[in-house]
Amino acid sequence: MSLSTTARTQLRRKRERQADDCAALHAVLDEALLCHLGLVDGDGAPLVLPTMHARVGEVVYVHGSSGAASLATEREVCLTVTLLDGLVLARSVFSHSANYRSAVVRGRARRVTDPDEHLTALRAVVEHLTPGQWDHARRPDRRETAATAVLALDLAEASVKVRQGPPGDPEEVAAGDRRWAGVVPVTTVLGAPETCPALPDDVTVPEHVRTWAGG
Amino acid sequence: MSLSTTARTQLRRKRERQADDCAALHAVLDEALLCHLGLVDGDGAPLVLPTMHARVGEVVYVHGSSGAASLATEREVCLTVTLLDGLVLARSVFSHSANYRSAVVRGRARRVTDPDEHLTALRAVVEHLTPGQWDHARRPDRRETAATAVLALDLAEASVKVRQGPPGDPEEVAAGDRRWAGVVPVTTVLGAPETCPALPDDVTVPEHVRTWAGG
Repeated sequence: MSLSTTARTQLRRKRERQADDCAALHAVLDEALLCHLGLVDGDGAPLVLPTMHARVGEVVYVHGSSGAASLATEREVCLTVTLLDGLVLARSVFSHSANYRSAVVRGRARRVTDPDEHLTALRAVVEHLTPGQWDHARRPDRRETAATAVLALDLAEASVKVRQGPPGDPEEVAAGDRRWAGVVPVTTVLGAPETCPALPDDVTVPEHVRTWAGG
Repeated sequence: MSLSTTARTQLRRKRERQADDCAALHAVLDEALLCHLGLVDGDGAPLVLPTMHARVGEVVYVHGSSGAASLATEREVCLTVTLLDGLVLARSVFSHSANYRSAVVRGRARRVTDPDEHLTALRAVVEHLTPGQWDHARRPDRRETAATAVLALDLAEASVKVRQGPPGDPEEVAAGDRRWAGVVPVTTVLGAPETCPALPDDVTVPEHVRTWAGG
């Protein structure tokens, strides 16, 4: 399926870096452990807050405290996710770059008020970041649910930008430049689980955490 | 030195997570390989773009193409940097969290026009991300310099937020809950350099890259 590109999400520069399918958008959103949510504050100034998200179909959810002003009302937002894959070292300073996959989703976020959708969103966020924990941990009670605000943003207006591969200045090699150039890969790594010190010594890391955490 | 907190950068929630010294701000900016730059577009909607930055004293610089509309003029911006340090798995879904260090810098960004400051900023960005490359790679020529826009943002109005440590629901242990809880560390790792395939086989990774890249 193709992404629906609007004037706001059509790249004006480096169009060859634009991915145009929903699968690419989903993959970036699903891999990222955090997103940055942009909004315009009461004085008209931009504000960018890091938060955590999850995608369910063609909607991305973010959650936070009901007391957070940023989540209080329906508003225009921009949700951006960036996966840094490498530092690109070129022969020229000018051609230095980064390998990355980024997604920008723009639109009007709505505050989720339906109890079923609210629960679905919370579950999605927990399972996105810490698979298996929704069934392992104690579920939110009424007070905790009320204290958690959820925003929903449709993926209707989004763009994905990707840069991969070696440095972009090979013509300098052809011209006889033997300077080293290449890519230093960047990865996000999960380490071995560290058990909460408040627990008794005989409580061990459960299987569902071992499967995705580091060793 | 203390951070100068204004009404816009004083945390309204979770104030215990607010760091209040410039050293903490500098450390977060200096460790991060990328930032997210928020601005308000011509229609009053928020836009968040990933980009790369470097700090020089009490100024943070970002750079991009002179053709990028986002860098064209002096404007209000919000530069946010987030270092994710861990996923926090609690006994209750509600207490799930993340360990992180984040910085939010707000203010009016100015376009750098002074040639010396422009060069200083470019050098700082290159050396921040790929130490040693400013002396290794070919420096920008007149055309390349003109094609590169630099924005400067003073660190005068900034906040730093930090969460560290184990899950925040130990009272559930005291109440007899033996469910596992803990932290899964998250780290950003640099891999072994991958030489550009356009280079002859006898060109090897230089010492200044080996010192900071992975093995």
